[in-house]
Amino acid sequence: MIAFTACIQSNQKTEASDNSASIDPLPSWNDGVTKSAIIQFVHETIKIDGANYVHPKERIATFDQDGTLWCEQPVAQLEFVSYQIRRMANSRPEWKDIQPYKSIIEGNKDYLINDYLNNHGKELMKLIVTTHSGMTLAEFYADVQEFMSSSMHPTYNKKYTETVYQPMIELLQYLQNNDFKTYICSGGGNDFMRVFAEETYGIVPENVIGTFAMNSFEQVNGSWSIVKGKDNFFMNDGLTKPAAIEQRIGRIPIFVAGNVRSGGDIGQLTYSKTNKLPNFQLLVHHDDDLREFAYSEKDSASLKAAEKGQWHVVSMKNDWETIFSFE
Amino acid sequence: MIAFTACIQSNQKTEASDNSASIDPLPSWNDGVTKSAIIQFVHETIKIDGANYVHPKERIATFDQDGTLWCEQPVAQLEFVSYQIRRMANSRPEWKDIQPYKSIIEGNKDYLINDYLNNHGKELMKLIVTTHSGMTLAEFYADVQEFMSSSMHPTYNKKYTETVYQPMIELLQYLQNNDFKTYICSGGGNDFMRVFAEETYGIVPENVIGTFAMNSFEQVNGSWSIVKGKDNFFMNDGLTKPAAIEQRIGRIPIFVAGNVRSGGDIGQLTYSKTNKLPNFQLLVHHDDDLREFAYSEKDSASLKAAEKGQWHVVSMKNDWETIFSFE
Repeated sequence: MIAFTACIQSNQKTEASDNSASIDPLPSWNDGVTKSAIIQFVHETIKIDGANYVHPKERIATFDQDGTLWCEQPVAQLEFVSYQIRRMANSRPEWKDIQPYKSIIEGNKDYLINDYLNNHGKELMKLIVTTHSGMTLAEFYADVQEFMSSSMHPTYNKKYTETVYQPMIELLQYLQNNDFKTYICSGGGNDFMRVFAEETYGIVPENVIGTFAMNSFEQVNGSWSIVKGKDNFFMNDGLTKPAAIEQRIGRIPIFVAGNVRSGGDIGQLTYSKTNKLPNFQLLVHHDDDLREFAYSEKDSASLKAAEKGQWHVVSMKNDWETIFSFE
Repeated sequence: MIAFTACIQSNQKTEASDNSASIDPLPSWNDGVTKSAIIQFVHETIKIDGANYVHPKERIATFDQDGTLWCEQPVAQLEFVSYQIRRMANSRPEWKDIQPYKSIIEGNKDYLINDYLNNHGKELMKLIVTTHSGMTLAEFYADVQEFMSSSMHPTYNKKYTETVYQPMIELLQYLQNNDFKTYICSGGGNDFMRVFAEETYGIVPENVIGTFAMNSFEQVNGSWSIVKGKDNFFMNDGLTKPAAIEQRIGRIPIFVAGNVRSGGDIGQLTYSKTNKLPNFQLLVHHDDDLREFAYSEKDSASLKAAEKGQWHVVSMKNDWETIFSFE
């Protein structure tokens, strides 16, 4: 009990003081309105006597992954799908004549692009089911680990986990150091992201919220095992992200970070605006074609929503002094 | 950083010492092999230099609710279903002639029992959908709150949240005080249990794992809201509980508590046995018809599994000095 009281007192002291102001918590961010706004929000959130204090239990922060925490050109998990199909094809010679496997084996990207444009990506879904269900969870983890340790980003020639944005890593750590519970809420797979989320982002498995199907618990070769499933499939994207956050956390985030590309984060950013507690929205805009990529949305829905909702837009070009730690 | 280090040191001191042995952490438990085994397990888990030490991150404990943490005669959530149907019936006069609503309005329990026995409970499912979907989450929370504060357990004439088992409340607190992350993993609804789990059990919303359907995020009367859904329905019971634990936590529990009635906890108890870390299984047996209820399973599957797996069986009659705080 003494130890517990001591901790509470220590935390209070830390929270009430502004010692942290003397050390820059976000050194890879250029000084400017975005950086200042983040630091001000955190200071106010932890200031116990302040009007905007938020209890640690309520300090929920959710981050999209692809395009927000690391590159989404290409999407690493889709590269994993191709990688797995090519590996599995060695023992499935019939695949060389069957779509959609044929297109992957031949490296023909048009097939899946046309499928996406004309057929709601149903062929891609077949590939996802093939590579993400039927095996034990332990086997799946091993496959993802193998992919992650052996595959390189095509532009940077670095492992995918090295293509994380250094400013966002600092932001995650800054929030974690101030007793925020940080979550990933992304279109990536629950089980896929868990393989590297803790080491890469300091995000524990229970805080990884992704696309999922419900797995099963069954005997495999005489041992009880979790087996990857394909039923109850839930795509965690766009307006469904708030539903996943609700299912997993049961609280509305006070801090959400997403990015411009497909409008996929408008849902969770809007959701955090419905919080009665102080809240903060961050939208990463990819406008740096020299150091990373420059792209926008056809309808600019995310940027329009940001303007309407007074979200904080990050210009990668102007707000980030460093993008990658390997620069 | 100084404050953080101080906390770590304090924790280490607490964990390495056995001061806690002098104060009984489980005063409502009679001395005996079950109580001793629990205390020994916790001591070994937190002893930093010991062979059975488990890092706090891995100290995951899951508890069934109905019959493990509180009475399941009757099941409170099914009482809520009847309560809601009767309330809603005031504005649905046509229900008095339509099954399954008619049976609830008339208090005819045979209809649903026959449905359960002969029709896989499909009629009950209609009632669950009617009372658990279509409204905003805020409205649903208010309805559950209203039910919980106004309804009484038929035998004890106490609120349902007062029919919790005092020994299990002490066990939850004991684990929480030793840095276990305690979860509910129960057939009850995710959103239903969250209404009272934190106040009743000290279990935060993100640690409530229950039966669920995916909700949606939509505009209701001009405001963005979570709306209770009925799709992607997942019944969290029996062998599906490990799948839900995997979806929500991504780690195997080291401590699981369930109860004898329908075999509904064999899955999660078996799952914890697959953990390579030290693990503990507790199975509550309802054998006290004087103070609570006495019931068993037709096939004794849970008790047989307990014997085979060397789980610890709690005799409510012999192991618990007190069952309810109101005794």
